Amino acid sequence: MTTTTTRTGADGFVEALRAHSRRYHDQHPFHVRMNAGRLSRRQVRGWVANRFYYQENIPRKDAAILSNCPDLEVRRRWIRRIVDHDGATAGEGGIEAWLRLGEAAGLTREEVRDHRHLVPGVRFAVDAYVGFARTRPWVEAVASSLTELFAPDLMAARLAAFERWYPWIDPEGLAYFRARLEQAPRDCEHALEVVTAHCLSAESQARAVDALSFKCDVLWSLMDAVDQAYPE
Amino acid sequence: MTTTTTRTGADGFVEALRAHSRRYHDQHPFHVRMNAGRLSRRQVRGWVANRFYYQENIPRKDAAILSNCPDLEVRRRWIRRIVDHDGATAGEGGIEAWLRLGEAAGLTREEVRDHRHLVPGVRFAVDAYVGFARTRPWVEAVASSLTELFAPDLMAARLAAFERWYPWIDPEGLAYFRARLEQAPRDCEHALEVVTAHCLSAESQARAVDALSFKCDVLWSLMDAVDQAYPE
Repeated sequence: MTTTTTRTGADGFVEALRAHSRRYHDQHPFHVRMNAGRLSRRQVRGWVANRFYYQENIPRKDAAILSNCPDLEVRRRWIRRIVDHDGATAGEGGIEAWLRLGEAAGLTREEVRDHRHLVPGVRFAVDAYVGFARTRPWVEAVASSLTELFAPDLMAARLAAFERWYPWIDPEGLAYFRARLEQAPRDCEHALEVVTAHCLSAESQARAVDALSFKCDVLWSLMDAVDQAYPE
Repeated sequence: MTTTTTRTGADGFVEALRAHSRRYHDQHPFHVRMNAGRLSRRQVRGWVANRFYYQENIPRKDAAILSNCPDLEVRRRWIRRIVDHDGATAGEGGIEAWLRLGEAAGLTREEVRDHRHLVPGVRFAVDAYVGFARTRPWVEAVASSLTELFAPDLMAARLAAFERWYPWIDPEGLAYFRARLEQAPRDCEHALEVVTAHCLSAESQARAVDALSFKCDVLWSLMDAVDQAYPE
């Protein structure tokens, strides 16, 4: 999907980016059912196991941006994302936190890590995202991360929903969502700074909006694939 | 240049890697003249300004390895290299230290950073190295970093040579070389661990040796280009 914005003002640009909240994956029928408490244990586990492939590829996506970015100042801040996900030492980081979410939901670490539940559509969507970060200009890759603009609202709603509807999941397993409540606003503030500083022409702004649109497609497609694999 | 080792023992493999010290750039005529105190100020400055392009691309090369590496444990250690070069905050890191070396040698930060002295052959060699890390299997890219096996000896000799022969360079400007005396052994120990753990077949060991050979070519070619641009 392409977007044809011709606005060059920063306000209109940020507005065009924020408008993509309508296409964020929290609007996906599967996610709507998840937050309404309508998923079975099998469906929740299927989502957790599949979404892990996304989680474990985030540091590789961010390292690709780091590799393509010639701006040392940006790299110094961007690298924090990799440490947040990989952890500075064993037992830390977002990937570990997601494995614990899996355990809290009744999945072994092994069955999450070995991808036995991973469905092709999820793999394709995630691989497309990493490939985008590797091959496209780094500012566009930064723009694609701006789904984080919408993440805190989603995380807050998801946390409440999981605590309410899925009490069989140990609440300690939800630490990943809690951490993202703080990390996502910090991360997207930086990304927005970078994108608004670099995208001054209508053309570059349109490319940034397209990048965010692409990322919405990635998350939506991931949800589609999970929805198909774990029907009601 | 390709190497056709058929040894599969770890000892023979490490020996084959270490044998590349004969092809390390400290053997290059320009480097030999540098350490013998035979370079003019203009030649030293030319080398410092050109070598900067290598320095500033090292974090991007390491981020490419990070991006290609699926092993979280390896990433947790490898990321340290990026922080070492970029610095955690302004005023820190190897790139900053090299800019200070430039200043100590009489170059402004600006003329080093804007690449006005950068010669094409140096750019091509460095870009080839970053491209190698981006496109080849990550273990080969790790193997290409093993010139660090030879770096401490070079750094110690270079430090002594600079202090003796080029007293017009403020010794504080040599901090980069001093830092590498400690970083290189730590880094290459990790790289050697990774390579010996992953390269168990004769074929994979030969590819690792080839990768190191390629890296020797990169450094040698860089030196060739500087030598041509700053003749005696």
